[in-house]
Amino acid sequence: MNALWPALLTMSAIVSSPTETPFVPAMRAVPFTRVTVEDSFWKPRIEANRTQTIPHNFKLCEETGRISNFAKAAKRMEGKFEGIYFNDSDVYKLLEGAAYAVAISRDEGIRGKADEVIDLIAAAQQSDGYLNTYYTLVEPDKRWTDLPVKHELYCAGHLIEAAVAHWSATGSRKFLEVAIRLADHIDSIFGEGKRYGFPGHEELEIALLKLFEATGETRYRDLAGFFLHARGQERKPEQEHFQAHAPLVEHTDIVGHAVRAMYLYTAAADWTALTGQRTYLPALERVWRSVTERRMYLTGGIGSKRENEGFSADYDLPNDSAYCETCASIGMAFWNHRMLLLHGESRFADVLERVAYNGLLSGVSLEGDKFFYENPLASRGKHHRKPWYDCACCPPNVARFLPTIGGYLYGESDDALWVNLYAAGTVEARVASGTVRLRQDTTFPWSGDIQFTFLETPGGTFSLNLRIPTWAHEPRLWLNGKPQPKRPDLERGYWKIEREWRAGDRVAIRFPMEIERMEADPRVTENRGKVALMRGPLVYCLEGVDHGGGVRSLFLPRDSVLTTRFEPNLLGGIQVLTGRAWARKASRDWAQLYQSAGQTHQTYLRAIPYCFWDNREPGEMVVWIPESPGVAEPPLSEGLSSP
Amino acid sequence: MNALWPALLTMSAIVSSPTETPFVPAMRAVPFTRVTVEDSFWKPRIEANRTQTIPHNFKLCEETGRISNFAKAAKRMEGKFEGIYFNDSDVYKLLEGAAYAVAISRDEGIRGKADEVIDLIAAAQQSDGYLNTYYTLVEPDKRWTDLPVKHELYCAGHLIEAAVAHWSATGSRKFLEVAIRLADHIDSIFGEGKRYGFPGHEELEIALLKLFEATGETRYRDLAGFFLHARGQERKPEQEHFQAHAPLVEHTDIVGHAVRAMYLYTAAADWTALTGQRTYLPALERVWRSVTERRMYLTGGIGSKRENEGFSADYDLPNDSAYCETCASIGMAFWNHRMLLLHGESRFADVLERVAYNGLLSGVSLEGDKFFYENPLASRGKHHRKPWYDCACCPPNVARFLPTIGGYLYGESDDALWVNLYAAGTVEARVASGTVRLRQDTTFPWSGDIQFTFLETPGGTFSLNLRIPTWAHEPRLWLNGKPQPKRPDLERGYWKIEREWRAGDRVAIRFPMEIERMEADPRVTENRGKVALMRGPLVYCLEGVDHGGGVRSLFLPRDSVLTTRFEPNLLGGIQVLTGRAWARKASRDWAQLYQSAGQTHQTYLRAIPYCFWDNREPGEMVVWIPESPGVAEPPLSEGLSSP
Repeated sequence: MNALWPALLTMSAIVSSPTETPFVPAMRAVPFTRVTVEDSFWKPRIEANRTQTIPHNFKLCEETGRISNFAKAAKRMEGKFEGIYFNDSDVYKLLEGAAYAVAISRDEGIRGKADEVIDLIAAAQQSDGYLNTYYTLVEPDKRWTDLPVKHELYCAGHLIEAAVAHWSATGSRKFLEVAIRLADHIDSIFGEGKRYGFPGHEELEIALLKLFEATGETRYRDLAGFFLHARGQERKPEQEHFQAHAPLVEHTDIVGHAVRAMYLYTAAADWTALTGQRTYLPALERVWRSVTERRMYLTGGIGSKRENEGFSADYDLPNDSAYCETCASIGMAFWNHRMLLLHGESRFADVLERVAYNGLLSGVSLEGDKFFYENPLASRGKHHRKPWYDCACCPPNVARFLPTIGGYLYGESDDALWVNLYAAGTVEARVASGTVRLRQDTTFPWSGDIQFTFLETPGGTFSLNLRIPTWAHEPRLWLNGKPQPKRPDLERGYWKIEREWRAGDRVAIRFPMEIERMEADPRVTENRGKVALMRGPLVYCLEGVDHGGGVRSLFLPRDSVLTTRFEPNLLGGIQVLTGRAWARKASRDWAQLYQSAGQTHQTYLRAIPYCFWDNREPGEMVVWIPESPGVAEPPLSEGLSSP
Repeated sequence: MNALWPALLTMSAIVSSPTETPFVPAMRAVPFTRVTVEDSFWKPRIEANRTQTIPHNFKLCEETGRISNFAKAAKRMEGKFEGIYFNDSDVYKLLEGAAYAVAISRDEGIRGKADEVIDLIAAAQQSDGYLNTYYTLVEPDKRWTDLPVKHELYCAGHLIEAAVAHWSATGSRKFLEVAIRLADHIDSIFGEGKRYGFPGHEELEIALLKLFEATGETRYRDLAGFFLHARGQERKPEQEHFQAHAPLVEHTDIVGHAVRAMYLYTAAADWTALTGQRTYLPALERVWRSVTERRMYLTGGIGSKRENEGFSADYDLPNDSAYCETCASIGMAFWNHRMLLLHGESRFADVLERVAYNGLLSGVSLEGDKFFYENPLASRGKHHRKPWYDCACCPPNVARFLPTIGGYLYGESDDALWVNLYAAGTVEARVASGTVRLRQDTTFPWSGDIQFTFLETPGGTFSLNLRIPTWAHEPRLWLNGKPQPKRPDLERGYWKIEREWRAGDRVAIRFPMEIERMEADPRVTENRGKVALMRGPLVYCLEGVDHGGGVRSLFLPRDSVLTTRFEPNLLGGIQVLTGRAWARKASRDWAQLYQSAGQTHQTYLRAIPYCFWDNREPGEMVVWIPESPGVAEPPLSEGLSSP
């Protein structure tokens, strides 16, 4: 037990007074297992994830010694620990993704592969429940001695998440029992009256709350609460990297390592939902505004700085060097989804949609076998996806996110079925009066026309809550074919239709899909005089391959008309944006401080969705397009001699 | 004698080895007294200077006690010293301007007024030659005790310049004798083997060299050389403000107070011309490149920073807060003219022209009775000329510059008559074989068509050297009506026509006067995405009065066509530029980091020469015009709520 602990606030400090009304989340997520995704946008990604990404990850985890580390720790194999001390977590994330894939596909190949690995993991667990191959093989006497750096609790969290996923997908408790033994072991060491400490990389907090939900064991929920509460009580400014500069209740600006921050606030939101305690709500709101209003890219990417894989100053959002780790985007989706469930406000779904369709999905190739670690918003042609990384956090994180995308689409509450994101398919939701089954027909995001058909209704009145995205100006709605003349005042961004729904009822909604020129707050200096193109939720970019190589000398005046068309044979079928553009051509020798404006020539522009970039010939890429030649860069050949 | 002095380098260090060929300047200036200016651009300014500016300056110098300070020091009047300790210099600069006005106009009113003041000055001179009303009246025992701050030597310099001008204009030696006594007094105190020191504000160096030219007394030249050499020998970084951070030979970047720097380098160039010593040439070249390539505004204005009235970092050239003191522009004209005379290279005339037609001339109202101290390149509507300033350096500096503009037009050397700037009128120049008289006919700067007619020629071959401005692309030339088919290779930017000229010979040259969109080096961040309009030597600006008040939300796309026309009834007759422009209109609430690009609407643009601005209704002004709405500012009413 750490001597500091008694001096700190105790858990009671984060529990509201009994007289305060418990916080009730606006909705629960309809789990992905009750949703089918049958569209042309996400379904091919889910399929590629199952057929390519997951097998690819198993192969690489084997080739890089990540799996054999477990065999060695289990004494089934000779040899030294291989790789980085947190490599166990990659295997766990992969197993979590494999479980989700099995849950929706019943893929026996993946199931069998996962079971083999789970057996090795179970065998590697120590008799007291401890499980971490690095410490068991390398520093067996140093367990729990370096919480800030060594990721033991982080790895444990990923094990637990994977185990809950496996149990949920298969009904088998074998992995879950491993997780329970590990969680009990950790619970025997840390906590009030025991040892003070918290994970140097957040993750276990999320996992313990999932384990609580899976088992009903309140010790896990309370241990998660302990870790959330313990963090930052020592107020060490140098621990800003893992958000331990101050207690969570005092957090204001988003700081430090981006993935860590996302996992922390995700857990805090989950804890709020599961306890009804309002303790962290004000801090979550403050930090959410900090990141979404001042430190987020248009793609939803976060963490602009390579040095700390994390946050920088307000409005410091450079494009070429944007770090925007794929894992941070996944964490951003987690957190915003949780915030949406808590509050039922579409602003959180707006950010979820922004990151899911752009800065997250860009992390994986169309084929599913290559991954971005960093997702910059501009490239000089040297940035490409790779099959693997020494620090391989992103590939298995993609593997576990994509199968669950259906779980982000709908919410359910006693009185409503919520549609949070739009994608063709079906949902089975539960409202107070019973089960609702609904079909969504749309080619979203290529079109903004969406039709809902009730397949089964429970009788009784409930509400269909349709999210109106911020980008959707003047949506129109039809109820059983009858146009609804006027949009009502939205409730927190949702168009709510309350009635006694009957099977066969149809609702159609049309979001006009305008090509939007987006501007950034002028304090984002790098984007001054530039626009980014969006259509619906998709951020577009220009790639060299569509423009004879160079796109950085292009500019797009405000009065240039843009049009859109669907190209069925391009990248599996995408909507492109085209129009006239111009490009700089004259070379500039800035030995003279002032000179006649350089020559320009007319050319064209073809923009593709950002999440599809780097799937063809390598080349330059930009998201933010100058509107005038003075903001554009000189052509590459001349750029060499320029500053 | 300062103890430090013996340890310093001695004068011999700045004198070249006797074996080195003395430096010979490319040309001598044809003095303004041998030039007539008979155009519609400068002549009205010269007239306003004589009829308004000079009488206005006399009146204000009287009203503010500047002249009565001399009466008090002469014990012809009771009372305390009034004003700032360097106020004597304003009177001297006014007298210098008055002398120049008398030289070209024989204005008896000005002559009489000047004589009265000169008599007071002579009476205020102390028996040992000392003359400074502040010290005489306030701190008589503290003479020469605060060279860095108290401007005694600076004031002495302006007295000497005024006295040389008066003698030159009138033939009277009464003021010159005062100057000689003062110079002798200073020479008795400072110099090698005497006291170490140098002016905290450069100026005396220029004056002593003029006094040497007027009298032939080499002591004055050598004392100027001493001050040039002594400066910075102590290498005090904190003395960067007056360029004493390092010896002049080591200067590289332009630093410190802008007016001080200009007067220093002007004197160094004069010293080079008068001694043939190459000592300072490399430093002058380095510093000239520093200012013209990295620290100068498009208008030729210099000194971007208010705090030090001087230089800042490379490319730090903000528009709204551009300090650009009028006196610094005058100094910039002085120095570049001197550099031109030394080298005969048009690049120096380009800068001279840039500052004379723009950032210098803007310093005075068309009427001649109001003055800018600061000449920013943008205004929100609050920046206006004033009749006077507590620190009134600028009004009398304008008064002494304008009458001499003719002296900047032509140069003479043994083998050539040089035309450095273009303006209608006549010149009498001296080449080796005798006197040349030439008439220049043109409406420059409104037109680029210029015709020269030789009125008198001395016989023998010499060259007519016509400067080709950098802005003049593809000039055409006719000799006695015959087109010259091809432009020869220019010699240092001059088109040289060597022949045996005869009276009646005519040369016509045509500089196409295109409307140029100018761009700044992209390292000037504030101008990225903006252009400035120029036509010939004139920088243009947009004024609120021509645009219904606001000009800061305007933008001018690259493809908008601009036209020009002469407006005879506007501001005495000016060429305006007009075209279609656009303006931002939608209000922007940047609580959202990204949003749809704001609305724009088409409008028009009417640009006037920058040097004519603030002569009508007060309002906004910009020189650098955004090319796209994202670079433009929101309209004023909405700007209040934006960052």
